[in-house]
Amino acid sequence: MDEEEETEEADADDEEPGMTTDATGTSVTEQALAALRGTTDPRLRELLTGLVRHLHDFARETRLTQEEWEKAIAFLTATGQSCTDTRQEFILLSDVLGLSMLVETLGGHHTPGVTESTVLGPFHMTESPVRALGDGIDLVGGGEPCVVSGRVLSADGTPLPGAAVDVWQADDKGYYDVQQPGVQPAGNGRGLFTTDAEGRFWFRTCVPAPYPIPTDGPVGDLLRATGRHPYRPAHIHFIATAAEHTPVTTHIFVAGGDYLDSDAVFAVKRNLVQDFAMTDDPPLAREFGVPNPFRHARFDLVLERAS
Amino acid sequence: MDEEEETEEADADDEEPGMTTDATGTSVTEQALAALRGTTDPRLRELLTGLVRHLHDFARETRLTQEEWEKAIAFLTATGQSCTDTRQEFILLSDVLGLSMLVETLGGHHTPGVTESTVLGPFHMTESPVRALGDGIDLVGGGEPCVVSGRVLSADGTPLPGAAVDVWQADDKGYYDVQQPGVQPAGNGRGLFTTDAEGRFWFRTCVPAPYPIPTDGPVGDLLRATGRHPYRPAHIHFIATAAEHTPVTTHIFVAGGDYLDSDAVFAVKRNLVQDFAMTDDPPLAREFGVPNPFRHARFDLVLERAS
Ligand SMILES: [Fe+2]
Ligand SMILES: [Fe+2]
Repeated sequence: MDEEEETEEADADDEEPGMTTDATGTSVTEQALAALRGTTDPRLRELLTGLVRHLHDFARETRLTQEEWEKAIAFLTATGQSCTDTRQEFILLSDVLGLSMLVETLGGHHTPGVTESTVLGPFHMTESPVRALGDGIDLVGGGEPCVVSGRVLSADGTPLPGAAVDVWQADDKGYYDVQQPGVQPAGNGRGLFTTDAEGRFWFRTCVPAPYPIPTDGPVGDLLRATGRHPYRPAHIHFIATAAEHTPVTTHIFVAGGDYLDSDAVFAVKRNLVQDFAMTDDPPLAREFGVPNPFRHARFDLVLERAS
Repeated sequence: MDEEEETEEADADDEEPGMTTDATGTSVTEQALAALRGTTDPRLRELLTGLVRHLHDFARETRLTQEEWEKAIAFLTATGQSCTDTRQEFILLSDVLGLSMLVETLGGHHTPGVTESTVLGPFHMTESPVRALGDGIDLVGGGEPCVVSGRVLSADGTPLPGAAVDVWQADDKGYYDVQQPGVQPAGNGRGLFTTDAEGRFWFRTCVPAPYPIPTDGPVGDLLRATGRHPYRPAHIHFIATAAEHTPVTTHIFVAGGDYLDSDAVFAVKRNLVQDFAMTDDPPLAREFGVPNPFRHARFDLVLERAS
């Protein structure tokens, strides 16, 4: 009897390779996983195996219907078709689902004291113009003037001369230059600076404003369906690069502004929130070339030595 | 002491809503889930919550890197941009990952004796021409002639007169009419039949051939990277519809053909494999209007009574 039962079981397995045999779809999942075994690149095999497991578990747990699946296919298709040279709707989707920030967090450096990273965002699509220390990056001059200054340091506190500080920000209305090609001059809100012999950088700009991520595409539909606002708290983007150090991609956020606790893309970290302090210091204002009083954000960008 | 510790913990939670505070990204996941709480439609909330959980777990378990994420974004974008009026690359992606068949299986009826369903596939994009019982659907006549016949029945065995049987298949070279607009006449391999007073249907065609799913897009790249062939075993598609019954979308597969155990889209079910038996019966051949001997597939389409 035992032997017969074993034979029956073995037959059931042997006779139906590649066939769907159960109502829960477990055999479909097994087939889809088995089909990945021939993947030459072991890391790709690991990623696709994890993807199929989670995708199938998601469908099984939620009992995803044919109609819902059709809506999802239409949504993903529209997302892909919304992408252009100047718009990346799939990155936006990843952003509002928290995936971009999660990947950034998993890959980031977590050495205490080293400047934390956050998402690159979709607006670093053009090269920042090379500028001299002290230059203004607000080429229009409509907003509240401010000065941003600090040093690029190694984790042990050593200043890093000759480090590159790439900066980009929205204007005081919340738009990047690339979003308003006829309105803002190219390079407005952007600058590529090099630190001086003491590792210092400083430049003039306007205080950035919160801005909504684009809402006229599929991701906007998703935000509306989930009752979420599309705003990001006011911030300035930085990429700091120095020889023999790991570069950091980050923001500084304007302390006290709106949406710091509800960033549409979940990119806020406490240590990245900086005071843009109102400063009444006529000699310093003269030195920086701004009217007194002025707002002044001061912070250091601290890089980890590359291993 | 205890009280102080509790206060500290409470502060840590209270002071940093919407901020990323840990290296594993758990706080990002919590924020992304919290952001879905305002979703009005409870089913959409359930689906998006499940999606975010699985997407984040996938990224965390595999430690998805920034570079891999970028490749995934590029792949999904290319998939969306490959879609046209006559091509749905996202459905194809869902198909080769087994998701389409899983959703079909989860939503299917599993009453014993009722014809099992399988995937619709991407080629039901045009209306099948209305044809009379006995008509040929092979308008070109290149392949091996065969007859397909059977009945549409209710689950209790009652024949269903006036049922619609929508049929579509690739030709003997493995192409659907819509893939070869200049080569095959429109409607080749397609027919919309109505069962007679005894619930019977029958038509002439050619034995279909296995065919590769399209491999010139992102899904083709994925198949190559995973060492998989793109073939589907030979099959004929059916949608059977009758009053007061649940329609069934299914295939019949040609028994003994290639790829039955490795369908690129995992759509084979044992009960859907049918013998296209070589039949030597001159009177029957005359009745069907085919040369003797001929291949003959005989099976019934059994529908569940709608509740
Ligand atoms: Fe930004
Ligand atoms: Fe097909």
